[in-house]
Formats: sequence, C-alpha cells, structure tokens
Amino acid sequence: MKTIDFWFSIGSTYTYLTVLRLRNLFNQKNIQINYYPFSVRTVMKEMDNIPFPPSKKSKVDYMWRDIQRRSELYKIPIPNVPVPYPIKDLDLANRIAVVGIEEGWCLNYLEATYRRWFLDFSLAGSDENILSTCKEINLDYKYILNTANSSEIKYKYKNLTNLAKDIGIFGSPTFVVGKEIFWGDDRLEDAIDWLGKP
Amino acid sequence: MKTIDFWFSIGSTYTYLTVLRLRNLFNQKNIQINYYPFSVRTVMKEMDNIPFPPSKKSKVDYMWRDIQRRSELYKIPIPNVPVPYPIKDLDLANRIAVVGIEEGWCLNYLEATYRRWFLDFSLAGSDENILSTCKEINLDYKYILNTANSSEIKYKYKNLTNLAKDIGIFGSPTFVVGKEIFWGDDRLEDAIDWLGKP
Repeated sequence: MKTIDFWFSIGSTYTYLTVLRLRNLFNQKNIQINYYPFSVRTVMKEMDNIPFPPSKKSKVDYMWRDIQRRSELYKIPIPNVPVPYPIKDLDLANRIAVVGIEEGWCLNYLEATYRRWFLDFSLAGSDENILSTCKEINLDYKYILNTANSSEIKYKYKNLTNLAKDIGIFGSPTFVVGKEIFWGDDRLEDAIDWLGKP
Repeated sequence: MKTIDFWFSIGSTYTYLTVLRLRNLFNQKNIQINYYPFSVRTVMKEMDNIPFPPSKKSKVDYMWRDIQRRSELYKIPIPNVPVPYPIKDLDLANRIAVVGIEEGWCLNYLEATYRRWFLDFSLAGSDENILSTCKEINLDYKYILNTANSSEIKYKYKNLTNLAKDIGIFGSPTFVVGKEIFWGDDRLEDAIDWLGKP
C-alpha cells in the first residue's frame, strides 16, 4: 500500500482544507497516511516568518477568500470568514494529535477540532473546543489533557518539530513522498501523482 | 471573448511558470489576456514582505525544486536551479513590458526575457538580457531603452503599481476575473474556471 507522510500543525489555516478532504481522497486512492504533528510556530520563528501579520492586510483578506473558494471546489463546508485567528494554544492542540496517533484516532480528532474551529468559531486548543471534541469522538477529556501534557508526549512533540526542521519542512500542511517535499494543500495532488512515479 | 487580467512583475520566480505556458493555454481556451506589469518590490516593501531571504533557506530550496517539478508537469523547459536571483533592475525590466503592451509585443518579450533569465542565467533587466531579447524579437535596443526610461512610461508604471495596491494585489503572478483575485501560478486554472461561472 502506498504511503504519504502528512506533516501538519493545527493552527494553520490552509490545513483546514486538507483535514476535511483527506479521508475521502485517501480512501478513494487507497493511500495510507502517516501523521506528523509539529510546531509550525517554532519553525517559523526561527525563519523570522510571520505568515499573516496585520501589515499584510491584502494577503490576509486574500487567504480567507481563497480558502472559501477552495472549500467550494472540494465540496467541503465553506467557512464564514474571517475565522478567529491565530489560535492561543497551538502546542496543546498538536500534542493531543500526538496522543491520537498512538491511540488510533488522530484523523477523527483533526476533523472534529477543525470543524469546531472553522465552522463554530471555537478556537482549536481551547478548553471549549477540546471538551466538545472529546465528547464527539468518545474520549475522556481529563485523560486526554493529562496525557497531552505529560513529559513523554512533550518530548515526542519536540522531536517531531526538530525532525521537521531537519527534513526542510517550513509550513503546514506538507506532504512527503520519499525524498520529495510538497508544501501546501494545493500540492496534495502533486504528492499523490508522485507516488505513481517509477 | 473571455478575458483575464494578468498582473505580473518580471523578477518573480514563479512567474516563469506562467509566462512559459500562457500562450498555449490561452489559445486553447480562447481567452484574451490583459497585461498589467507592476512593481512587486514596492508592494512587498510596504507590507514588510521579503519572500525568500537567506534566513528561509528551506523555503528557498523548496521553491526551486517546486519550480522544477511544475515545469515538468507543464512540459516547459526545466531550469537548472538555483537560477540567479534576485534580479537587479526589476523596474526597467517591467517598464519595457509597459512599452510592449502599447506596441503589441508584450508576451513575446516576457517569454524571451524569462527564457534568457531561467535557462541561460542572464538576469532579466540586465543589458545583456535586454540586448539579446531585442535581437530575438526584432526590436531596436536603443529605442526600447529610451522609451522604457521616458517619464511617460515611468508614470504609467507607477500608476499600475498603485492600482495593484488598490485592488489588493500583493504578489506575482496574479489573475483577476471580475472582482475575484487569484494569486500564484497554481491558481491560474481556478481563474480560468471562474470565467465559466454564471
């Protein structure tokens, strides 16, 4: 079975598009996903990269409109924009995803937490979002919070972030096929096509 | 006939992809192009945007690889990378395009100057590039230089740059269909699809 490494940071806006179309797309194409959460904020700080600051108003406005148009294209729910941004606890949101990988519910979590953020305006990583997401996908909120805050998960998350930097990943979402890196939701099809190369 | 406004700055790397596939694509689809050169550097400076500084090495390396892969996808010549970057005289290169619009050879110029830059490593806007480009497309070098440096063309170019900012354009290439802005070579197909909307 063919495999794509999916590197992501909950907190990234464009990752909404990928998360909500991933399940159907990969089922159709019979592709397996490896999940790699990392701290895009850490990586970007080291590059002095602030993707959507207030000084870039045109770019920010464009980004939201682009996400709406792309949602329509993918037939996923079209968010009202602007969606509240940035999120406050990016690291917690992503450490929960690390727990999800080990326990097999990572994609369920990604879908639920992004839906709540983008469609209900409840910030990913917030108490409210985590609580209702846990309820939806049948997880014990206190257990999840304790595990996501454990030193073991923090250590794994830090290692994933370092690994991202080592590979040359600088944004979310990123797809890796062999040695090829594809950055951006709009390169997912390119990554899938690359799987078919000899 | 349907029309797309093509906003560009010679000096942008990704614009190579658009320039070299534009003629065939728009002929096939029977779409008319309006050309709008502007100073992306002026626009970016005002947004404190430096797209590919040395601190973003991963992103720069990625950009070149992405351009290679996309060139292959589009069946246009694949450049050796890294291509010399940035160019020195961005404004002159683009003012020549302004002259080209009025005289009807804008696309010929874009294709020739980008080929020389990306495939022969002769910087767009340099004497060498302009000289050989003029030769290739049968233009008088001295006349072109004088006209591109005239206050009339400088004034038009400045107005185009201001207009770009007013519309909310912040990068090159950008495609405008009605009130919709599509940024990036990878959104050209979305712009074309938008033409077909009721």
